[in-house]
Amino acid sequence: MTPQALLFDVFGTLVDWRSGLIRDFELHFKKHPCDLDPALLADAWRAEYQPSMAPIRDGSRPSTKLDVLHRENLFKIADRFGFPLGDETDIDWLVKAWHRLPAWADVPSGMAELRKQAICAAQSNGHIALSVNLARYNGYSWDAVLGAEVVGTYKPAPESYFRACDALDLPPAACMMVAAHNSDLLAAKACGLQTAFVRRATEHGPGQTIDLEAASGMDLSADSLTELAHKLRNEIR
Amino acid sequence: MTPQALLFDVFGTLVDWRSGLIRDFELHFKKHPCDLDPALLADAWRAEYQPSMAPIRDGSRPSTKLDVLHRENLFKIADRFGFPLGDETDIDWLVKAWHRLPAWADVPSGMAELRKQAICAAQSNGHIALSVNLARYNGYSWDAVLGAEVVGTYKPAPESYFRACDALDLPPAACMMVAAHNSDLLAAKACGLQTAFVRRATEHGPGQTIDLEAASGMDLSADSLTELAHKLRNEIR
Repeated sequence: MTPQALLFDVFGTLVDWRSGLIRDFELHFKKHPCDLDPALLADAWRAEYQPSMAPIRDGSRPSTKLDVLHRENLFKIADRFGFPLGDETDIDWLVKAWHRLPAWADVPSGMAELRKQAICAAQSNGHIALSVNLARYNGYSWDAVLGAEVVGTYKPAPESYFRACDALDLPPAACMMVAAHNSDLLAAKACGLQTAFVRRATEHGPGQTIDLEAASGMDLSADSLTELAHKLRNEIR
Repeated sequence: MTPQALLFDVFGTLVDWRSGLIRDFELHFKKHPCDLDPALLADAWRAEYQPSMAPIRDGSRPSTKLDVLHRENLFKIADRFGFPLGDETDIDWLVKAWHRLPAWADVPSGMAELRKQAICAAQSNGHIALSVNLARYNGYSWDAVLGAEVVGTYKPAPESYFRACDALDLPPAACMMVAAHNSDLLAAKACGLQTAFVRRATEHGPGQTIDLEAASGMDLSADSLTELAHKLRNEIR
């Protein structure tokens, strides 16, 4: 069955967080010289994301915007690696690097193609403002921005997928999760959604070892949103 | 200060619910003949909207999608006026008339202009699916769809405006409420938002007596979104 809605993961699937963070650390270090490898810091900053969400997932910390977590995590890695943060303005600018992440090249045109075929909605653990700013920064558009504030929980909790479908008035089987991460897709599949794997083989840099292939049982697999649009038109009936 | 985000009322401000309902009652009565005036029924159906939200507003009924309320209200007016509803398929089709309301002619191009200047978000009491479907039906796009499910309450409660701004990471003063209804705008203004009145002088038909002029103190007033885009570019610094 052709899906009536596509739900998209954002970080890694649509935007290249690693290149974006490297670029902005390089710019920051022009102002505040430092000979650490920006790629190391990008990976370290991203690695703090899941642990920092754990207390929110288990209810011991109230729902918190990703900007706040990113800021706390930036202080952690600055402490650990010993690099200069600069003043409040510099810190705010670095935290906002997450709002300036570049989309993979196929995203703007691929998303426009996909929106002709189905409702396209962000289903990220990021907050609404972040999804909105990334879309405007990169020139792609959503039909709806769902995610943490709308569904009241985080992926991969089953409720996050069920409530996203419900927000669009659609049963899970009429929705397709689109992600570069098999863990996200398998959780969505367990909730009855269709699934599309988009390969982002350099999300974690040149030595990436995970998510290089779709797990078995995915409905579609593509190397870009453009290819996904083509396959959706031709392979799903 | 130029607003960074525009929050839009939808019913009446962007879409012409009365013409849309009249059109679909006329189509329905071709199948199920009836000599009642479709305009009378459109007005009666719309008039049930606010009373049906009252128990949800005061907490005596849990949050309920507008489709459910529209369906209950359709049965009420069918009973009162005595018109044929047809079978379940016909009833579903009539309820979904609210997803097929035509936008005022200036909306698609005006919205595209406004999105170049600011984040544009739906801030309707309608549920997300309804705002999404109306946008796709009429060919305009949102940066974000806010509203009841995101803010957890209904306009004109102050929290509805505060939480909408917060969802976009913006202070109220950086946001502008756009509506054809002074009551909505005055409530937003009391929360510190900027306000733009868009005149929809036939929203309630040819004999409309309310909302023909902006209340005093509105930041902008326009006859179309196109004019609003022009004024926003030229009159607000």
